[in-house]
Amino acid sequence: MRVIRSALLMVLLGGSLSAVHAQNAVPVSGGPVDPAKLQDLVIANRVLTDLNVIDGFGHVSMRHPTDPNRYLVGRSVAPALVVADDIMEYDLDSNPVDARGRNSFLERFIHGEIYKARPDVMAIVHTHSPGVIPFSVSSVPLRPVFHLGAFLSPGVPVFEIRNPAGQSNTLVSNAVLGQSLASVLGDRNVALMRGHGSVVVAATIPMAVFRAHYSNVNAQLQMQAMQLGGQVTFMDPEESQKTLAVIDQIHGRAWDLWKRAALEKMSAK
Amino acid sequence: MRVIRSALLMVLLGGSLSAVHAQNAVPVSGGPVDPAKLQDLVIANRVLTDLNVIDGFGHVSMRHPTDPNRYLVGRSVAPALVVADDIMEYDLDSNPVDARGRNSFLERFIHGEIYKARPDVMAIVHTHSPGVIPFSVSSVPLRPVFHLGAFLSPGVPVFEIRNPAGQSNTLVSNAVLGQSLASVLGDRNVALMRGHGSVVVAATIPMAVFRAHYSNVNAQLQMQAMQLGGQVTFMDPEESQKTLAVIDQIHGRAWDLWKRAALEKMSAK
Amino acid sequence: MRVIRSALLMVLLGGSLSAVHAQNAVPVSGGPVDPAKLQDLVIANRVLTDLNVIDGFGHVSMRHPTDPNRYLVGRSVAPALVVADDIMEYDLDSNPVDARGRNSFLERFIHGEIYKARPDVMAIVHTHSPGVIPFSVSSVPLRPVFHLGAFLSPGVPVFEIRNPAGQSNTLVSNAVLGQSLASVLGDRNVALMRGHGSVVVAATIPMAVFRAHYSNVNAQLQMQAMQLGGQVTFMDPEESQKTLAVIDQIHGRAWDLWKRAALEKMSAK
Amino acid sequence: MRVIRSALLMVLLGGSLSAVHAQNAVPVSGGPVDPAKLQDLVIANRVLTDLNVIDGFGHVSMRHPTDPNRYLVGRSVAPALVVADDIMEYDLDSNPVDARGRNSFLERFIHGEIYKARPDVMAIVHTHSPGVIPFSVSSVPLRPVFHLGAFLSPGVPVFEIRNPAGQSNTLVSNAVLGQSLASVLGDRNVALMRGHGSVVVAATIPMAVFRAHYSNVNAQLQMQAMQLGGQVTFMDPEESQKTLAVIDQIHGRAWDLWKRAALEKMSAK
Repeated sequence: MRVIRSALLMVLLGGSLSAVHAQNAVPVSGGPVDPAKLQDLVIANRVLTDLNVIDGFGHVSMRHPTDPNRYLVGRSVAPALVVADDIMEYDLDSNPVDARGRNSFLERFIHGEIYKARPDVMAIVHTHSPGVIPFSVSSVPLRPVFHLGAFLSPGVPVFEIRNPAGQSNTLVSNAVLGQSLASVLGDRNVALMRGHGSVVVAATIPMAVFRAHYSNVNAQLQMQAMQLGGQVTFMDPEESQKTLAVIDQIHGRAWDLWKRAALEKMSAK
Repeated sequence: MRVIRSALLMVLLGGSLSAVHAQNAVPVSGGPVDPAKLQDLVIANRVLTDLNVIDGFGHVSMRHPTDPNRYLVGRSVAPALVVADDIMEYDLDSNPVDARGRNSFLERFIHGEIYKARPDVMAIVHTHSPGVIPFSVSSVPLRPVFHLGAFLSPGVPVFEIRNPAGQSNTLVSNAVLGQSLASVLGDRNVALMRGHGSVVVAATIPMAVFRAHYSNVNAQLQMQAMQLGGQVTFMDPEESQKTLAVIDQIHGRAWDLWKRAALEKMSAK
Repeated sequence: MRVIRSALLMVLLGGSLSAVHAQNAVPVSGGPVDPAKLQDLVIANRVLTDLNVIDGFGHVSMRHPTDPNRYLVGRSVAPALVVADDIMEYDLDSNPVDARGRNSFLERFIHGEIYKARPDVMAIVHTHSPGVIPFSVSSVPLRPVFHLGAFLSPGVPVFEIRNPAGQSNTLVSNAVLGQSLASVLGDRNVALMRGHGSVVVAATIPMAVFRAHYSNVNAQLQMQAMQLGGQVTFMDPEESQKTLAVIDQIHGRAWDLWKRAALEKMSAK
Repeated sequence: MRVIRSALLMVLLGGSLSAVHAQNAVPVSGGPVDPAKLQDLVIANRVLTDLNVIDGFGHVSMRHPTDPNRYLVGRSVAPALVVADDIMEYDLDSNPVDARGRNSFLERFIHGEIYKARPDVMAIVHTHSPGVIPFSVSSVPLRPVFHLGAFLSPGVPVFEIRNPAGQSNTLVSNAVLGQSLASVLGDRNVALMRGHGSVVVAATIPMAVFRAHYSNVNAQLQMQAMQLGGQVTFMDPEESQKTLAVIDQIHGRAWDLWKRAALEKMSAK
């Protein structure tokens, strides 16, 4: 009860702070962004939709290539419809640099607070992907069972929004909740959000897309392996680390495929 | 046994009453309908088919925008084939205003009787969606496990047609059965129909489509979470209510995506 | 042991008889077939492929419209590739009327022997559909759980080819095996073939396609309902019979949709 | 512990040997390859992608048609993007004949070492197909349950890379690991790779594609049959052998379908 009350207090404070930021501080831009990089962010939105990792909801962001204190993410629109002009720039408190009437995602704080906490992270995906959600509400943990899911080692924490927020609308819609999620994520690559989805981080957009997709694949494989009723062999932490290193080298093979398919669909319209 | 006998009696009465209506009362029209609104109804048919919520069967209706005592729904044709000229107008006893030789759905009473009982409802979807049917025949209840399924709180009743109809053809094909279904639905957003499908209601077409789709998604996620064999965490009633409010604000993001895709497919033919 | 030995004997006899037929009796044609009806048979091949009921294998046949002692089925080619010129005519012993160098399906005896045993049957589908095969190898019977699967009442027998054939290549490749399958089917609408697929019969092509598809759907729904772990409510025999009658009236709605989609795909090539 | 240490030693040796080969021996070509056969290899890459047997990863190879000591496989690119010019030639130690700057698959040793150990094998597929991976990590063995999966008899071994490699990056990236996998495969048609995928061999490309696809199908059917909770009937070894023989005759029916669909997609771009 005390936990919940103090959590509510934190939310209220967080909400106020965030409102103050939004009114007082219109941040300056981190500078122009290479159009090819913006294009990759647009493409990532399409690819993740094609892979059924995100649908009408979910988002993918990148840290500003030349200013680590800014990040870029689409306006509040279904990812499959994002075009370059929809990409908005934010400071790490998630205040928009130049909204031009475009609406922001309520949950942009997921991105701002993780970029703040994790200097190594350059791209973030927030998903509602169907494979991982069952693990987000189950006492059974998601674990690496497939070599391309090695980035799930050493474990996938679950963010329970009732801890910081009590009975809420379940959206990570302010800085305090974003910080709480970032703290549950810690130095890992993936965290689940209870009854909601996941957040996936990486050093590049292609790697973030790769991890978002193969989190979903690994989850489905683990689910099916467990349903067979026998003993399940998971990956060892050490082989996961070694596999992770080699996947860093080869993951571009998948990105090239997905990107080409997305470009073909975009040009066919 | 007494229950069954009186139920059969009610069906017979209902059938007769309905026949009387059909012969005696040719209702007058509620007036012309804004073509953009008719178009949204047509689009909803395509969207629900694309989402695999309905197939050759199932239907979606809207209350007449200017006459609350009339509703609009396609003629008896597969939803994916519905065009504006297929939309028929009915009074709330489900008598057609001007059939012009077009056949009516046998189950249009689902719509008429719910519009009668629920003044707040402006759009209704009847589905055979594959995710929800297993819950319609199981003693395990469908419950909100995913935040976008929050509208399933405070619970999803199951309409057992054997209660009002005894051994029937399982179709809600007269006013008495429609009333019975409406009464099981009560003030909720979704009711399952045992061995048949579901009925989903909302204040707008986009929200009805949203709820029909995410009922199906939530059902599949719950099924998979339960198959993992561990403990499953459902949404709390209070957080469901709060989430419901915020989804009301953002659900248009999904509708915009679905509508655009449907329009592209229609114009490509 | 005795059973197996006599079964093998029967196969050998069956094989010989069939060979004799093939050499001695070149049957005369039942006469020209209305091109619209042939077209429906071609369409049925495409529709069943689109519905994932058949793949590179499986077949659909119709009884000759004017000669009940002849039937029509594609040559030995993947159903999705069948065109009108591939349709071959057979007598009920499955001898081709005029092969013109076209190869026959090894399993055409499924069709010939069922048409012989069941004068009411005018169309037959043989599937490897993924939903029904698990039930063909399980001690758990396939039962109607969904109202559009009412034709599965009063039960779905399983043909165990080891009974008539012992250790065989599992194909119903001669008259004796076809007769054995027809006898297991009896007066029902659907029989499963252990580790192989199903055979579905009806009075028209659209109804045979409908039943083949909804057998698959019902199987998947039943599987999922059982996996929920609670009590499952199946359809009562009486309501199944009543539902069957009304489905006979409305099943064309699905056929119209499927046929139009197949025609659009064919004309787009 | 001793096993692991000596395994690591073998890997180191294997790595060195392979490096020596790569530097010392640039093999001569086995000669020009019939373009129609190269085209079939390209098509097989597309078909397996369309069948969801491989995705951005996985590969398919063929033995050189006129030199049994050479094999052909795509460069390190997603299979769906392979064109004739991407096909590279290797000797059986997996040294490229003429790389022309093209990158090799790290796991090409799967192919070289199996071609070395199995003179009967003319085509090999390495998959990450979703149906088989659960069985690769489960104590429940994959077994033939569907007649088109008869080639899984007399059993499907699982390659545990920890046996030869200890804690590794899980890739079969040198000759020693390839030999170990080939030895686990033995004279069978399919071996699973723990937490990774499968390897499938055959005497022709169409048969290798057929087996890769129906391994995946059989795995999904077995999984679902087991989930029904009843007793499951598997194929007998003798009927599997007989079925295998007849499938050899008819499998081209599926290949013709898949090839035509792939060609249509390629020409539409």
